[in-house]
Amino acid sequence: MQPAGAHDQPLRAVALGGGHGLQATLRALRLLTPDVTAVVTVADDGGSSGRLRRELGLLPPGDLRKALAALAAEDDAGRMWSEVFQHRFGGNGALAGHAVGNLLIAGLLETLGDPVAVLDEVARLMGLRGRVLPMCNVPLDIEADVTGLDEDVTAVRRIRGQVAVATTPGQVQRIRLRADRNGPPTACPQAVQAVLDADVVLLGPGSWFTSVLPHLLVPELHEALVDTAACKVVVLNLVPQPGETAGFSPERHLDVLCQHAPRLRVDAVVADVDSVPTPERLRTAAASLGATAHLSTVTAGGAADRHDPAALALSLRDALQLHGLHDRV
Amino acid sequence: MQPAGAHDQPLRAVALGGGHGLQATLRALRLLTPDVTAVVTVADDGGSSGRLRRELGLLPPGDLRKALAALAAEDDAGRMWSEVFQHRFGGNGALAGHAVGNLLIAGLLETLGDPVAVLDEVARLMGLRGRVLPMCNVPLDIEADVTGLDEDVTAVRRIRGQVAVATTPGQVQRIRLRADRNGPPTACPQAVQAVLDADVVLLGPGSWFTSVLPHLLVPELHEALVDTAACKVVVLNLVPQPGETAGFSPERHLDVLCQHAPRLRVDAVVADVDSVPTPERLRTAAASLGATAHLSTVTAGGAADRHDPAALALSLRDALQLHGLHDRV
Repeated sequence: MQPAGAHDQPLRAVALGGGHGLQATLRALRLLTPDVTAVVTVADDGGSSGRLRRELGLLPPGDLRKALAALAAEDDAGRMWSEVFQHRFGGNGALAGHAVGNLLIAGLLETLGDPVAVLDEVARLMGLRGRVLPMCNVPLDIEADVTGLDEDVTAVRRIRGQVAVATTPGQVQRIRLRADRNGPPTACPQAVQAVLDADVVLLGPGSWFTSVLPHLLVPELHEALVDTAACKVVVLNLVPQPGETAGFSPERHLDVLCQHAPRLRVDAVVADVDSVPTPERLRTAAASLGATAHLSTVTAGGAADRHDPAALALSLRDALQLHGLHDRV
Repeated sequence: MQPAGAHDQPLRAVALGGGHGLQATLRALRLLTPDVTAVVTVADDGGSSGRLRRELGLLPPGDLRKALAALAAEDDAGRMWSEVFQHRFGGNGALAGHAVGNLLIAGLLETLGDPVAVLDEVARLMGLRGRVLPMCNVPLDIEADVTGLDEDVTAVRRIRGQVAVATTPGQVQRIRLRADRNGPPTACPQAVQAVLDADVVLLGPGSWFTSVLPHLLVPELHEALVDTAACKVVVLNLVPQPGETAGFSPERHLDVLCQHAPRLRVDAVVADVDSVPTPERLRTAAASLGATAHLSTVTAGGAADRHDPAALALSLRDALQLHGLHDRV
């Protein structure tokens, strides 16, 4: 039962991330509230997105497209456009592997210019429940300090680009965004405002260094995440990602988060109970960020590598309970 | 003033053709009635369309896209999508020269399958005034008998493909559609029905052999054009097209039409007065098809190679007057 007054307004939820991890949180959040904003990493340099970025100098559209599909209306038109956007051309020609939605977003970016206007148009087309925003209005370049690539295992190499970092056989120590001559990238203003206005902000799951942490490297977005009065929830991965976080424990994920944003306080850490070998260690690591740990089963039956939207929504609702927000979802 | 009863229904207009010629008639017809159906040639094998056709085996989308843009709603959304569809990627990469709308139509064709369903979806997106249909649901191959390519000027060569025929330096004598092992191509049923149900049917202007006459080579469409009770109007080109109809007089255009469809009767021939050197000859050629010739200025001020939609609409209205249809527009 919702209380009257200000609380008649639906819960304002913001999810930060990219790729399949962001799709999982968006599918869970849409079960809790119609007011979901995705703030999407724009650092991809691989696949269809990477090809478009290199050929046309545009924002990599792939993660934006996936977020749009996750929030598309569940009616005939929403499903149809979602399927078309996600469809990839086959064969072995110039278009092979390109997602149709990537090409349309690229065309809209060239025609309309402003990425926020582009995404709002696609949102209208898909009957979106919520909004999709880029973290920045320009493509980002990730750079990582990586050890373990040389005979001298302490030697640090600088690895550049999302694909290279995500697949490195070494150990990622820390990441940076490559600044251009104008300095560090500027956050998308609407994304910053969404974080500041939110009731709940989700960070993760996803490729930790290349999809989740980049948000903390954009100064205005970092500050908004530190300053917002929202309930802040970190959603941990189900399985360690081969490459960038191979062998990382759940605690280590929180450690690197803290390392990249020492002033960030978190309210809740949500994890799958079967993905946490040492719950006490996770509780301690969460507590050091100011957070309580919420462990439950959030996977789909039998699929240990995939979040179940309904189960994740329930776990998120539990986390919100501590903040008195549960009666608004 | 419209009479009451059945005539409350808006005039049902069908325009057959392709490319810029079809865009001109569609822009004129939409000034006369909201019920406009474009029946579009799908024989293109050049440019962005030809690349998509070869790479993915799909209907060439370019002429469909142009027709959609010509009928798009004249509001913000219609103008925006029309601009996006017509936008071509630049640069020198794999996408250079592809129209965004062609790529989206290709994606929809691969996802939905049925071209009519695809075009109806795009029509909804663009707020279309009317409907766009392909003449056939499969890509067509044009083949022409051409003379004048050899030292023996009477030698006939068979030239294949829309681009090759449209740009031949020889004289096109006649065209055929290449049949596959299943025989001649089958017309799009909705296009056949639209012709049968129409009050007025327009043929031309456009590349005569490669955009206008192909409609007469599909048996069901040919029969529908012969049988329909609609007022049939041929709209002649403003300037002879270099290549396929270089040096053709207006009369010669009607002659080759008659040659490809001897049983077709026409009610009106609309031509620009400045494009007809010998009006009496045109009147005679029109009369042999059963038609009256309507000569007036249908060009835009100063642009002798472009139809003015308003002027063409006025001329079409005159042609309809003889059939008692003018009070329905």
